[in-house]
Amino acid sequence: MIDHDPAAVKQVACIGAGPIGGGWTAHYLARGYHVTTYLHEASEIGPLTTLLETAWDSLCRIGLAGGASMNHFTWTTSLEEAVEGAEFIQESIPEVLALKQDLYKTLGEIVDPRTVIASSTSGLSMSDIQAKCSTPERTVVAHPFNPPYLLPLVEMIGGRSTHPDTVAWAERFYQAAGKVPLVMKKEVPGFIATRLQEAIWREALHMVANGEATVEQIDQAVVNGPGPRWALMGPCEIFHVGGGEGGMAYCLDQFGPALELPWTRLTAPELTPALRDAMVSGCEAMCQGADFSTLSRKLNDGLVEIARIRGGKAAE
Amino acid sequence: MIDHDPAAVKQVACIGAGPIGGGWTAHYLARGYHVTTYLHEASEIGPLTTLLETAWDSLCRIGLAGGASMNHFTWTTSLEEAVEGAEFIQESIPEVLALKQDLYKTLGEIVDPRTVIASSTSGLSMSDIQAKCSTPERTVVAHPFNPPYLLPLVEMIGGRSTHPDTVAWAERFYQAAGKVPLVMKKEVPGFIATRLQEAIWREALHMVANGEATVEQIDQAVVNGPGPRWALMGPCEIFHVGGGEGGMAYCLDQFGPALELPWTRLTAPELTPALRDAMVSGCEAMCQGADFSTLSRKLNDGLVEIARIRGGKAAE
Repeated sequence: MIDHDPAAVKQVACIGAGPIGGGWTAHYLARGYHVTTYLHEASEIGPLTTLLETAWDSLCRIGLAGGASMNHFTWTTSLEEAVEGAEFIQESIPEVLALKQDLYKTLGEIVDPRTVIASSTSGLSMSDIQAKCSTPERTVVAHPFNPPYLLPLVEMIGGRSTHPDTVAWAERFYQAAGKVPLVMKKEVPGFIATRLQEAIWREALHMVANGEATVEQIDQAVVNGPGPRWALMGPCEIFHVGGGEGGMAYCLDQFGPALELPWTRLTAPELTPALRDAMVSGCEAMCQGADFSTLSRKLNDGLVEIARIRGGKAAE
Repeated sequence: MIDHDPAAVKQVACIGAGPIGGGWTAHYLARGYHVTTYLHEASEIGPLTTLLETAWDSLCRIGLAGGASMNHFTWTTSLEEAVEGAEFIQESIPEVLALKQDLYKTLGEIVDPRTVIASSTSGLSMSDIQAKCSTPERTVVAHPFNPPYLLPLVEMIGGRSTHPDTVAWAERFYQAAGKVPLVMKKEVPGFIATRLQEAIWREALHMVANGEATVEQIDQAVVNGPGPRWALMGPCEIFHVGGGEGGMAYCLDQFGPALELPWTRLTAPELTPALRDAMVSGCEAMCQGADFSTLSRKLNDGLVEIARIRGGKAAE
């Protein structure tokens, strides 16, 4: 069905010009694509231009793809013009189901059915969004983290009528476009990153509500404690390294019982043998056999650089 | 009682030579102190030397304090020798209450009562640790984040018999020593940072247990999503910036209801007017009137640097 090479896409359409749609526009331009962005109203071009200029300055410092140019950007208030010639469509209109359903109904009729349409939605399901679309098999959720031009994460999942090939094709497209796509196995509210972020946020609210910590203390604790590590390694790998030579297995076998302690108000899951093994083998697979000293050196080197970015605050 | 200037301390004793005691030794040396470290057994000097050499390499790249030198390090297996002349004592022996109680009993007798003794304990309370100490008023918990020479956080709280002046003195000592001390108002298990870290960790375990995400997906989601932001700003400031010009107030008034959604298994606290106001005024105080564009530029600039550290992965 979708027969073109995801790594050969040259022309992308971005539908929606808010912070997410504009951020995607900046990202695709920086990776060398030609981008046409659909604006709901012509007056949106002012804020969009400001966003693109700010983003471009950042992207130049990180490094552009060969051939990348702001000259490859065009905009329009005509949906037909926006999708004309597009080999991929990134939709980022407001999070209102009826709006999205109507848009996908129209796109379903005017866009070549071999062209994938991905939604940046953070809270709606593709099964609902695609309900009125006559060609729903090529639609998929691809949720970025803001700003999409600086944070590589894209959480993906299809809807009931999405064809599995669509998800696979879009995953390869995002990899080629410099993103880190994660294809979810189940539709779960908040995907992965927002759920984890929400867990921290709720615990922080509890602490403030109970007078246990101030807002500033919470932020200081994160930024001067676990935060710099999370820029470099996820929570599983951090415990894998924290376990020393014994890795995650040592960590769980030694500190598993601490899961029962009243640390945070989040009820702990039961640490079954199956869960223990999933954590241990998952860490080992992820680290591809890298040993403790390699991992811990990688973490330390990154922390040194972050300390330097932050003006040597770690050591002043 | 404690009459010397915390900023004038020159000689520190570190009791315990594991990863935490050794990490503290490295930190104090890099900040220009003379350090005597007590080893339980002489054989610990091998791993301690390795730790110090690794740490020193990192610390040199961040920048040493004037006069800092590894020549200012000595070690001993005699507790009396270790504390001789010490103007401050950092205790980091194993987390076994009976061991700590016995140690504090001895220290209470052999150390000048005007010298503050701070414990790196992560899980015991100072009220318990100081139970057998004849001079408990100068003891305090000062919990670092590992490695103490790269992460500035120190979470502090006194025990039942701790004098308030001790806490205030130690807070000023840590500030002078390049740390970020946070004095807790209440004794709460896991202090702040470990509780927040535990909230993420538990949610991650739930997701793996339910087959919603793999270990690698969880780590990829953090490192490519919220993680880089947390190296630069805490969760409160991130929402404060996320709220745009309206800041935290806009965020809570707009998205407060989302607290009720089943995002994460952590039960949300009730968003009372008092909690809302505490969050808003806390953010405003913390940011000292910095406006949205200043804050968001600071965040973006930091993310650019982190993307560069990580090999331009954000844009490749």
